[in-house]
Amino acid sequence: MVGDAHEPFSIQSISKLLTLILALCRGGDEIWQSVGKEPSGTPFNFLAQLELESGFPRNPFINAGALVVTDYLLKKLGAVAPVVRDYARALSGSTDIDINRQVAVSEFKHAHKNLAIAHLLSTHGMIHSAPSALVEEYCSQCALEMSCSQLARLFLPLATGGFSRILGETVMTQRIVRRLNALLMTSGVYDSVGSFAYRVGLPAKSGVGGGIVAIAPGKCSIAVWSPGLDRSGNSLVGTLALELFAQRTRLSVLG
Amino acid sequence: MVGDAHEPFSIQSISKLLTLILALCRGGDEIWQSVGKEPSGTPFNFLAQLELESGFPRNPFINAGALVVTDYLLKKLGAVAPVVRDYARALSGSTDIDINRQVAVSEFKHAHKNLAIAHLLSTHGMIHSAPSALVEEYCSQCALEMSCSQLARLFLPLATGGFSRILGETVMTQRIVRRLNALLMTSGVYDSVGSFAYRVGLPAKSGVGGGIVAIAPGKCSIAVWSPGLDRSGNSLVGTLALELFAQRTRLSVLG
Amino acid sequence: MVGDAHEPFSIQSISKLLTLILALCRGGDEIWQSVGKEPSGTPFNFLAQLELESGFPRNPFINAGALVVTDYLLKKLGAVAPVVRDYARALSGSTDIDINRQVAVSEFKHAHKNLAIAHLLSTHGMIHSAPSALVEEYCSQCALEMSCSQLARLFLPLATGGFSRILGETVMTQRIVRRLNALLMTSGVYDSVGSFAYRVGLPAKSGVGGGIVAIAPGKCSIAVWSPGLDRSGNSLVGTLALELFAQRTRLSVLG
Amino acid sequence: MVGDAHEPFSIQSISKLLTLILALCRGGDEIWQSVGKEPSGTPFNFLAQLELESGFPRNPFINAGALVVTDYLLKKLGAVAPVVRDYARALSGSTDIDINRQVAVSEFKHAHKNLAIAHLLSTHGMIHSAPSALVEEYCSQCALEMSCSQLARLFLPLATGGFSRILGETVMTQRIVRRLNALLMTSGVYDSVGSFAYRVGLPAKSGVGGGIVAIAPGKCSIAVWSPGLDRSGNSLVGTLALELFAQRTRLSVLG
Repeated sequence: MVGDAHEPFSIQSISKLLTLILALCRGGDEIWQSVGKEPSGTPFNFLAQLELESGFPRNPFINAGALVVTDYLLKKLGAVAPVVRDYARALSGSTDIDINRQVAVSEFKHAHKNLAIAHLLSTHGMIHSAPSALVEEYCSQCALEMSCSQLARLFLPLATGGFSRILGETVMTQRIVRRLNALLMTSGVYDSVGSFAYRVGLPAKSGVGGGIVAIAPGKCSIAVWSPGLDRSGNSLVGTLALELFAQRTRLSVLG
Repeated sequence: MVGDAHEPFSIQSISKLLTLILALCRGGDEIWQSVGKEPSGTPFNFLAQLELESGFPRNPFINAGALVVTDYLLKKLGAVAPVVRDYARALSGSTDIDINRQVAVSEFKHAHKNLAIAHLLSTHGMIHSAPSALVEEYCSQCALEMSCSQLARLFLPLATGGFSRILGETVMTQRIVRRLNALLMTSGVYDSVGSFAYRVGLPAKSGVGGGIVAIAPGKCSIAVWSPGLDRSGNSLVGTLALELFAQRTRLSVLG
Repeated sequence: MVGDAHEPFSIQSISKLLTLILALCRGGDEIWQSVGKEPSGTPFNFLAQLELESGFPRNPFINAGALVVTDYLLKKLGAVAPVVRDYARALSGSTDIDINRQVAVSEFKHAHKNLAIAHLLSTHGMIHSAPSALVEEYCSQCALEMSCSQLARLFLPLATGGFSRILGETVMTQRIVRRLNALLMTSGVYDSVGSFAYRVGLPAKSGVGGGIVAIAPGKCSIAVWSPGLDRSGNSLVGTLALELFAQRTRLSVLG
Repeated sequence: MVGDAHEPFSIQSISKLLTLILALCRGGDEIWQSVGKEPSGTPFNFLAQLELESGFPRNPFINAGALVVTDYLLKKLGAVAPVVRDYARALSGSTDIDINRQVAVSEFKHAHKNLAIAHLLSTHGMIHSAPSALVEEYCSQCALEMSCSQLARLFLPLATGGFSRILGETVMTQRIVRRLNALLMTSGVYDSVGSFAYRVGLPAKSGVGGGIVAIAPGKCSIAVWSPGLDRSGNSLVGTLALELFAQRTRLSVLG
């Protein structure tokens, strides 16, 4: 651990990986009836794609897909943000992880894009919750605050075939692990999945808070944090750190 | 080896991997000035994307990108299809690999889509060759015929860090190998990269001739062939064979 | 007058012509800073267009444009639906015109598309009102109920250079009249402006309630009503009636 | 007549009106099986629209539509450019109208966009000619040179219900006249039909050579020419001249 490894920050889109894990672990393949597995490939017209494809989001990591996953969990569990928080606490072995309410409230105030998406999803019958309630819940899960150290421990099971060293038990099947890493590899870092794989060669999930979690299957999980973002919304320095780290340690899964 | 492992078939889009290897080995990073590294994500409007992005193709494996790579090699080497054929012969150690001229001629006759793309690329100054000559050369490289056995041997260096056991020498750097596998992982199998990674977990390149070549870095290369295609243009049975094979042998790079 | 000329029906999108008249008469050219004058030409992806053009709606008769006009009037006048109702009463000389509150409430419940549009407009800073309040006001103006007889009288000034025979005074300038008719001619009947001009040859505004108002400049205004709609959302029989009427009376402005 | 009324210039897209007249007069409604009547409304992605709508062009005045009309005439008449030239000579009573071969050849050399469109049309089975031959013929018809004086006389029948004063006979039915003016009104001036109707209020056809022909049904035809173009490709000064002329003479068909 180097730098501010224990400094908590807003995990933002990294929460999408948590909700997807919960959806797959609690509901199996059911979620794939409402969301796809392909990279979106279109920074320039996110609503256009959703519209042309009748409201079926491309993957669980674009906002439309993440909203569908949160909606699915809302129906199944009654609440999402607190469940996600408790899951993060348990798997990282940290009781001090929490949602920053102020951030959640402030982001909901400016959530017009996500509200537009949610209403469009509603038009196509893709969500069950009221758009406003759904987006509010989504803003809460995004406002979860964690440190690099906590994030790396939380997602370690994705590198150990599903076994949690903290809980001393298997928390997800190898099959789910493999599939989650596949989705991360092809859709995990916004519209830079190609160049990220080209440079780093690891499945990863990024957030606009500047955090990135990367998985080296069979070896380790890595979390980096640096707020400055590149054009795609990934941490600029964080990506560079992962690139250099993967090169020197020969961690890339691609040779 | 099982089935018709020695039966030659049209490699079609798998030739795009060969031209990309040649472009990277002969010209280094220069090719990235004319083509991107991101998945296209759009089966429904390939020309639209190219048009909106000013003729800059998303990656070297969509037709627009492959045409740009072939154009680059045409300018650099004077010819492409024969060079690709000779390279395939050398690396697979098979002197009987050849271009099926009849297939090349017949495909050029119906190449209106590729001609539309080439003219659009011309409009944006992205190619130097005349569209008609470029598409004719491209049809020739796609008409290369190889067997599964030859394909697996040809691409083995992508699994061995660039070392060719047949030639007894390193034919590309580890860095290029890693990058090629990254591009295959995120853009290698048309618009199914997400579900292919989800099911198989290996970098791979497919062709509409029904062939697929997959790479297990550090372990082996695998070629399958079965002409029936799924909606995305990948071999239906070939993909299933790779999925089962990867599961039983735990070859997936993703855990 | 033939048929149910005195039967009131929901004017729906015809209300967009009323709000545009009010915006032009009260604010002059100011409204053109927020909305365009060109036909949209795209039934298949209304949000895509808005998104690609940074939230600037193509014209005041598509929903995005009408919402911008209503937002403009909300800021200027404090309320829209009651003002529109009073204007309709005054110009048609009918005190019994009113908003059907039940229709307004019911349509607001299912207004997800318009809410998606309003939130997207908000993202681009194109509206000042809260999306929800704006769409509610818009649903009210659309729920105004009028009969053919009232509609024809209401819009007669568009055929008389701006003079209202009912009020005995000029209610808008000839210049505004000419411009309104131009906008109706090129954007008044959803995505059928070309074939409507081809068949009828008159500026007109239609609504999904089945009503159409057509203007024969210098001659008369005509209102028809028949609930069955064609693919574009225009009254099927109403359009046919106008076509036959225009042919027999040689009313077309196009020769 | 003022200015260079007798100076010949390249009529370019105004030739699309000539081919449409020929198609309607010689083949009746048959042409509407291959082309639509609606404004395209999309400057930003002309190929995208064509692609999404399966190669069915929106109207006869966008390039895709004009190519379909020329293809139709090629099949029906064997040649197009010479027929168009002879028609223009006859109706304008000028034997000195001709095609500028040098312009035709030069434009064909840079016709990559039109070739892309033609190949895309071919993919969808919308044309019968070879794309290259079709585009060459199209470049010839666009290279027809005429003066304002000749253009105004040529299109006078569109203002006189189809009667040619020069030939002393009816050259098209009133029905065709009305329909041509409708298409001009809604699609005649590229992506500015809305603002052109708003400013001028007359059906018109423009060309990138700087010419515009406008029709005042029942009154007169007007031709203007000034090479400087606005963003949409219409003559800047020509449009302004028509706007002022229409205002002072109260020629607008819209009140």
